[in-house]
Amino acid sequence: MSKKVVTFGEIMMRLSTPGNKRFVQTDSFDITYGGGEANVAAAICNYGMQGVFFSKLPDNALGQAAINHLRRFGVDTQFIARGGKRLGLYFLEPGVSMRASQVIYDRADASITEAEVADFDFDRIFEGADWFHTSGITPALGDNTAVLTLAALKAAKAKGITTSLDLNYRKKLWTAQKAREVLIQLCEYVDVCIGPDATLGFHSEDTDINLDTLTTDDYSTVFKQVKEKYGFKYIASGLRESHSASDNSIRALIYDGNELYQTARYDVRIVDRVGAGDSFASGLIYGLLNNMNAADAAEFGVAASALKHTIPGDMNHATLAEVQDLVKGNRSGKIQR
Amino acid sequence: MSKKVVTFGEIMMRLSTPGNKRFVQTDSFDITYGGGEANVAAAICNYGMQGVFFSKLPDNALGQAAINHLRRFGVDTQFIARGGKRLGLYFLEPGVSMRASQVIYDRADASITEAEVADFDFDRIFEGADWFHTSGITPALGDNTAVLTLAALKAAKAKGITTSLDLNYRKKLWTAQKAREVLIQLCEYVDVCIGPDATLGFHSEDTDINLDTLTTDDYSTVFKQVKEKYGFKYIASGLRESHSASDNSIRALIYDGNELYQTARYDVRIVDRVGAGDSFASGLIYGLLNNMNAADAAEFGVAASALKHTIPGDMNHATLAEVQDLVKGNRSGKIQR
Amino acid sequence: MSKKVVTFGEIMMRLSTPGNKRFVQTDSFDITYGGGEANVAAAICNYGMQGVFFSKLPDNALGQAAINHLRRFGVDTQFIARGGKRLGLYFLEPGVSMRASQVIYDRADASITEAEVADFDFDRIFEGADWFHTSGITPALGDNTAVLTLAALKAAKAKGITTSLDLNYRKKLWTAQKAREVLIQLCEYVDVCIGPDATLGFHSEDTDINLDTLTTDDYSTVFKQVKEKYGFKYIASGLRESHSASDNSIRALIYDGNELYQTARYDVRIVDRVGAGDSFASGLIYGLLNNMNAADAAEFGVAASALKHTIPGDMNHATLAEVQDLVKGNRSGKIQR
Amino acid sequence: MSKKVVTFGEIMMRLSTPGNKRFVQTDSFDITYGGGEANVAAAICNYGMQGVFFSKLPDNALGQAAINHLRRFGVDTQFIARGGKRLGLYFLEPGVSMRASQVIYDRADASITEAEVADFDFDRIFEGADWFHTSGITPALGDNTAVLTLAALKAAKAKGITTSLDLNYRKKLWTAQKAREVLIQLCEYVDVCIGPDATLGFHSEDTDINLDTLTTDDYSTVFKQVKEKYGFKYIASGLRESHSASDNSIRALIYDGNELYQTARYDVRIVDRVGAGDSFASGLIYGLLNNMNAADAAEFGVAASALKHTIPGDMNHATLAEVQDLVKGNRSGKIQR
Amino acid sequence: MSKKVVTFGEIMMRLSTPGNKRFVQTDSFDITYGGGEANVAAAICNYGMQGVFFSKLPDNALGQAAINHLRRFGVDTQFIARGGKRLGLYFLEPGVSMRASQVIYDRADASITEAEVADFDFDRIFEGADWFHTSGITPALGDNTAVLTLAALKAAKAKGITTSLDLNYRKKLWTAQKAREVLIQLCEYVDVCIGPDATLGFHSEDTDINLDTLTTDDYSTVFKQVKEKYGFKYIASGLRESHSASDNSIRALIYDGNELYQTARYDVRIVDRVGAGDSFASGLIYGLLNNMNAADAAEFGVAASALKHTIPGDMNHATLAEVQDLVKGNRSGKIQR
Amino acid sequence: MSKKVVTFGEIMMRLSTPGNKRFVQTDSFDITYGGGEANVAAAICNYGMQGVFFSKLPDNALGQAAINHLRRFGVDTQFIARGGKRLGLYFLEPGVSMRASQVIYDRADASITEAEVADFDFDRIFEGADWFHTSGITPALGDNTAVLTLAALKAAKAKGITTSLDLNYRKKLWTAQKAREVLIQLCEYVDVCIGPDATLGFHSEDTDINLDTLTTDDYSTVFKQVKEKYGFKYIASGLRESHSASDNSIRALIYDGNELYQTARYDVRIVDRVGAGDSFASGLIYGLLNNMNAADAAEFGVAASALKHTIPGDMNHATLAEVQDLVKGNRSGKIQR
Repeated sequence: MSKKVVTFGEIMMRLSTPGNKRFVQTDSFDITYGGGEANVAAAICNYGMQGVFFSKLPDNALGQAAINHLRRFGVDTQFIARGGKRLGLYFLEPGVSMRASQVIYDRADASITEAEVADFDFDRIFEGADWFHTSGITPALGDNTAVLTLAALKAAKAKGITTSLDLNYRKKLWTAQKAREVLIQLCEYVDVCIGPDATLGFHSEDTDINLDTLTTDDYSTVFKQVKEKYGFKYIASGLRESHSASDNSIRALIYDGNELYQTARYDVRIVDRVGAGDSFASGLIYGLLNNMNAADAAEFGVAASALKHTIPGDMNHATLAEVQDLVKGNRSGKIQR
Repeated sequence: MSKKVVTFGEIMMRLSTPGNKRFVQTDSFDITYGGGEANVAAAICNYGMQGVFFSKLPDNALGQAAINHLRRFGVDTQFIARGGKRLGLYFLEPGVSMRASQVIYDRADASITEAEVADFDFDRIFEGADWFHTSGITPALGDNTAVLTLAALKAAKAKGITTSLDLNYRKKLWTAQKAREVLIQLCEYVDVCIGPDATLGFHSEDTDINLDTLTTDDYSTVFKQVKEKYGFKYIASGLRESHSASDNSIRALIYDGNELYQTARYDVRIVDRVGAGDSFASGLIYGLLNNMNAADAAEFGVAASALKHTIPGDMNHATLAEVQDLVKGNRSGKIQR
Repeated sequence: MSKKVVTFGEIMMRLSTPGNKRFVQTDSFDITYGGGEANVAAAICNYGMQGVFFSKLPDNALGQAAINHLRRFGVDTQFIARGGKRLGLYFLEPGVSMRASQVIYDRADASITEAEVADFDFDRIFEGADWFHTSGITPALGDNTAVLTLAALKAAKAKGITTSLDLNYRKKLWTAQKAREVLIQLCEYVDVCIGPDATLGFHSEDTDINLDTLTTDDYSTVFKQVKEKYGFKYIASGLRESHSASDNSIRALIYDGNELYQTARYDVRIVDRVGAGDSFASGLIYGLLNNMNAADAAEFGVAASALKHTIPGDMNHATLAEVQDLVKGNRSGKIQR
Repeated sequence: MSKKVVTFGEIMMRLSTPGNKRFVQTDSFDITYGGGEANVAAAICNYGMQGVFFSKLPDNALGQAAINHLRRFGVDTQFIARGGKRLGLYFLEPGVSMRASQVIYDRADASITEAEVADFDFDRIFEGADWFHTSGITPALGDNTAVLTLAALKAAKAKGITTSLDLNYRKKLWTAQKAREVLIQLCEYVDVCIGPDATLGFHSEDTDINLDTLTTDDYSTVFKQVKEKYGFKYIASGLRESHSASDNSIRALIYDGNELYQTARYDVRIVDRVGAGDSFASGLIYGLLNNMNAADAAEFGVAASALKHTIPGDMNHATLAEVQDLVKGNRSGKIQR
Repeated sequence: MSKKVVTFGEIMMRLSTPGNKRFVQTDSFDITYGGGEANVAAAICNYGMQGVFFSKLPDNALGQAAINHLRRFGVDTQFIARGGKRLGLYFLEPGVSMRASQVIYDRADASITEAEVADFDFDRIFEGADWFHTSGITPALGDNTAVLTLAALKAAKAKGITTSLDLNYRKKLWTAQKAREVLIQLCEYVDVCIGPDATLGFHSEDTDINLDTLTTDDYSTVFKQVKEKYGFKYIASGLRESHSASDNSIRALIYDGNELYQTARYDVRIVDRVGAGDSFASGLIYGLLNNMNAADAAEFGVAASALKHTIPGDMNHATLAEVQDLVKGNRSGKIQR
Repeated sequence: MSKKVVTFGEIMMRLSTPGNKRFVQTDSFDITYGGGEANVAAAICNYGMQGVFFSKLPDNALGQAAINHLRRFGVDTQFIARGGKRLGLYFLEPGVSMRASQVIYDRADASITEAEVADFDFDRIFEGADWFHTSGITPALGDNTAVLTLAALKAAKAKGITTSLDLNYRKKLWTAQKAREVLIQLCEYVDVCIGPDATLGFHSEDTDINLDTLTTDDYSTVFKQVKEKYGFKYIASGLRESHSASDNSIRALIYDGNELYQTARYDVRIVDRVGAGDSFASGLIYGLLNNMNAADAAEFGVAASALKHTIPGDMNHATLAEVQDLVKGNRSGKIQR
């Protein structure tokens, strides 16, 4: 029987400009759908596990389209509540070279911000689940989602389910102060923490690091402190060096309480950088759920993340075999025929 | 010196499905921009007059794109205030045959709903203007816009500018009761009223009429009452018979206090039906500002509206010469080479 | 608890020319997926019921894409076997006016032709099902599928499930003689038969009928004979008058043993004519499973079929509410806002 | 051995707006290539005969692209001279409903206007040819092409080759007076004349005729006079009634010296109306070269022309079998599978 | 009050192949509009200044489309004369890797070549202007434009307006000898000269330089001589090293009479290389008009030019803030959210 | 008189995903056509020689489209037999960065596998030919094609025509054992052999080599042995180092019996890597047929191959002048205007 991973969060419609066009140039948008936890659920299905995603979406054709997108991957969408005002949107202008990608969020008043505990039957949702994953973006969306995130984590822990939280601090959504207050409460119910920094304080996904001169000592100290304070089983973090909007290097760190492991580094030519962090998270979950040690799970996660950069959209369409092949070191990109 | 027409209202980004696709099928949207009064300003420029549009738009690239779209037509956008939360959106799924077009509005909290009188310098805006046009949609967007619409009409009248109001009642925006209260206040400052019905009570744009059996007597009675009550100089209304989403027939009525004139009828194969009413309004304004009598102005308006059905987008790209040619009866669509 | 409908057959990748182009002109194909029974399963889900489709598809990315397409609709695809040589394809050049649509099938050696009874666990597949539907195309694909169709019908009947068969005779797949031999065997296990003709003998979907001069007497006689001979509970048939590739008229007949009911007629402007028969079948199934009488079920089916003509692709994206609204007579195609 | 038809004239790049867009709206053009005589050569190849086209094109990639387009059809392009200033262009904005198609020609100084007799070896070009076709557009392009047209006709007649001339008067290219002077000289070498009117005097392709009230008597008189004056073997003319830019009716007339034959009438839904006259001409040539009588050849020509209206581009991609099938009366547009 | 910059020159329609296709492969063109001075006017508006562009364009829909394109940016187009034969065109096949971009100009007989002094009212055009910019391409188009360029420079200087000239020698338009004769006359009225070489003698924009081994001494000598001879206030030049059609490095030099300043170097991944020189010019003008010293203005110009390489089309859509940010050294291209 | 090169093999329709999409993401395919020997024939025509390609294709519109594609290049297609079951297809998902390109072949039962000697008149096909080229893929398609390949080589040699064979071993089509048996028979009739390895044994096109550490000694030994055993006049091989799916380096080796020559190395940014080997082969043939020595011919071939990587599709649209220019060392990709 395959493993079952439940995730909770927002799914937005993403509207991106085609052909390297800027917002002021385009007369069409490419449509896809994404959100941190939804992206994780989709990737989980790609790896042959069961992915369940719950959220709240408007009861119109746009909300239905978001659900249909998730169903393509095989994500179980039966627990998505319907109702509320609108589908959250975000607009993406992908960057090139030294021109950075631009994101305009239009997610205020999305249906999920009106979701309530009564919209979800945690007993049914978590039945038979092995893992629950959510992120620090979800509680940042509003008071309702903060309450719901805590409730879901508690419900999952009460059922003995492993939990993970990708801190993913976004400064446009809330202050660091507010984030710290809310997230610290959540940490009590979290087994695997992704992305913490020294002060818990949380490092932003967009932090840019020089991977050539990376000293892991600092991370080692921080992760140790964080682990001691919050009792996480694993602490992991993806690292990124942004040479330009077209070329990045990535690697990841994981700390299991004993040692800080540093993965291989990947130099990626970017097709679509969004969702790369979620690919790391879902790869890590896959690994830990399938009996890998921390180092191997992080290697699987960072390889999945590397492949994500080459695939359009927020969600990762890399297959299990492709990730495994890349972990083994096949980076030549030779034609498969 | 060409005539100057000022309009006030909302401009939204329109996201429509290409190739007859439904919302749940599409993976791209065609982008255009529209809004009743913005559409009128654009058409005014096409006819060689000066069009000025004022509104409030967010200070981001999407707001800029809406402005740039208006500038293509030559609309004077210098009085558009910048700020507020977001650009209003609407999603359009064009219909075919017996499948109706679907519209999903996502305009709540658009920047214009936060606009205030202090955002606009009416003295400068109306300087040298000959006409001011707005619609019943604008005050329906919220209290701020209702206040602004009234203030603008008053300011225009104080300068001796001719004013027009397209009642355009939309039942999803407000109740008929609330609409009546607000609109009646506005009517005191209106010279040309488009689209009233018996009770002032306002007939919806979407009313479907059998043009073959149309008895103009009813309209005659209503228009007479309305004129007497509100003192409009002209009352006009576009009429539509919807055979299917692909084929409609249209004509228009105008009443100048003496007689009710009924225009020629046009049977249109539809490319894009949105903005057809605004094309009638702008054609009517063109005619009345250029010394046509009521009947000729309405003929010009309905011909412009007919052409709009054949042009993608909310805004009419028909030229003055093309409308004039159609009014003269050239409907054969013969290739021009 | 919603009703559950199981279907069995082929699903092909459809490659169609865009923009009215001919095969020799195009340098791109639009991709969708379709097949008679798959189309029925998708529509069943649209109406809020559970649709299950089983088949066999190659274990490559193209087979996966076909599955993903079905999952968008919510079709349960867990019983689709994977393996075999290739995904069946068909190429479509949509017609316009007097230029007929062209179809080139490339379905030989599709994986389903290698499917065997051992690939499917009928006990699990039919568990809790209310209806089983298949068509005369499936047994025409080869000996394996003929055996499987019979086995599936027997298994369904053994579980007391209502069964339907859309005869759908295709002369390029087999001779009338061979078709008759195979199909007559199947008819023993069929409750609802769609599309029979006088000799059982099966009328082709492409038969063109003058709906203005249609005499239902002939149909009445045939349907009565067929019903007596095979014991069907209902016999139904969609009828089509092809004015051109752009405009058709359709209606349907149903016979319940007592009287032959003739539905309303729809004049349709065609966006995509493929799958219209499957839309009739799925609408009919919906109606009969939801306590409609034969006449109402046929009206629901023909309205669903009419809407299908306006939607790109083989599968019907009309919603339950839209079909119900059309049955009530709202054909004006007025914009919904 | 298949028949060989040589044609001479201009081939232009055509740049047309996609998706019903107007020139001021589009940000892309669809590219195809066309010109009266080039279109005839392409259709000739479609019918299984040998088509040869000669002209002059610039020695750059755009000229090469025009040649490559012709080669797709199998047209023999070896006699096309290379050199001169530029490729002729025309811009097309296809019309819809009462909005007429717009054409902007940009053909001045095209390479063909610099072509000279020395560029072409008529002995080789006409070797083994059965027919030579050109049009009244070619000599209208300039003095060089007028000289060349006359020279080519003389050379063809000297070799005993049947010749045809599609008068195709275009008032933007030359005055009626100038046209008459030049064309009358050519007529001496012409066997089959397409499109003359009373005064020779030439009716424009764009003449709009009411086919319901067409009296052929006038044509009979004119054609008789013209035939007597110029000694043509056949005189033919396509007729068009333009209901709108979307719907036309067409038929044709042919006069063989004895009687005026009027073909069947076709009501066409228009995809692309350009090149319809050339389709008539090429169909007529096919018929006359393949032993049809005048009436049958004209029926073949008008059926080919009807199909052309359903096909994008200037050149006709209808096959011999399709035209033959339509002549037989199969206009239902039923799907071919 | 924002600064006002007037420019004069040609604007052409640009037709470029999409998706890395070659001219002989494409069946569509992407459309944009560009010309050296028009590009400068557009960028000036992006930086919040007033841009005015004058030229002559045909009085048809294509000429209108070019105007509309400029108006999107906010360029003041009221002084563009209408008339003449045709819109100038150029065809672009963008290169990749070692395959160079190909340009085919089709600008002969463009309307601007027929422009006369009487078409423009220099008093009104230059009223309130701070800067006038033109290039060496404009006088190269023909005798009329050479006369006009001189007249415009004289008129600008007579009003005390700062003037700039981008020499931009194009060997396909005229000989070096002829260029020298004409340009030397213009230099008398020029304050800021872009792109001179040793002999005045003008270095072509396409000169390829090895930036790694660049010795600025040569430039220093040349610029000093040129400055002494022509009395320019500033002499500047963009430099380019072309590693391939996909990757270039750029920097710029400026000489203020005292020292030669060399800017930072940018390594750019190319989306669209056309108009990069005009971006340098407009950035330089922005800087000098806004109280930057020569070095800072050149840094602003080269940063603007670097960003241009990442944006499709001839005109630069980089904003003031983006250029300023890049000047500060933020080249990481990190996602902005 | 230009040289004439005949080739024999398969031509398939290629269906590739646009915009970096994966198979499971795309809803359209770009269409082109390709096959090793067809690609060679097309390139031969680009270089101004006569290319003849023979094969067997289905007698439907898809087969016709493949022929039309070849005709664009000027390939002589008159000897292509028509008939058989279907057009061979292949599906291509182009890779990026470390994500490899994926190919799914769907060529079983293609018409060529049913071709027989009686379908081709070798006397006419080889009349006046200077060269015959085929590959090891063709005999791998089935017994019929193996017989035909041998017969064609024998017929060519009997006429004294130079022959070449690109071994091109594809392990999905046959075993190495079977390949060796069949190919050794062919080698007797081959003058120029491309791609052999040590054991004759044949190195796969996809072998990845580190060009920085390439020792040519091994190749020297192998080529010498192979030459001695089979008596080839020239032995050549393209070499490829795959840094990623986006960046490769290539060079080539040629052995003329005396020395092993190693060409210049090209670092290519990849647009489309398919057909690069065929470009090397056709360039080599061009060189050897036009009096180049082995080294120069190989340089021409590898430069042609480098350019192919920058051009979409299987077939090379590089012109003779472009290849010659690149051989001379112009790799800067500077814009040509």
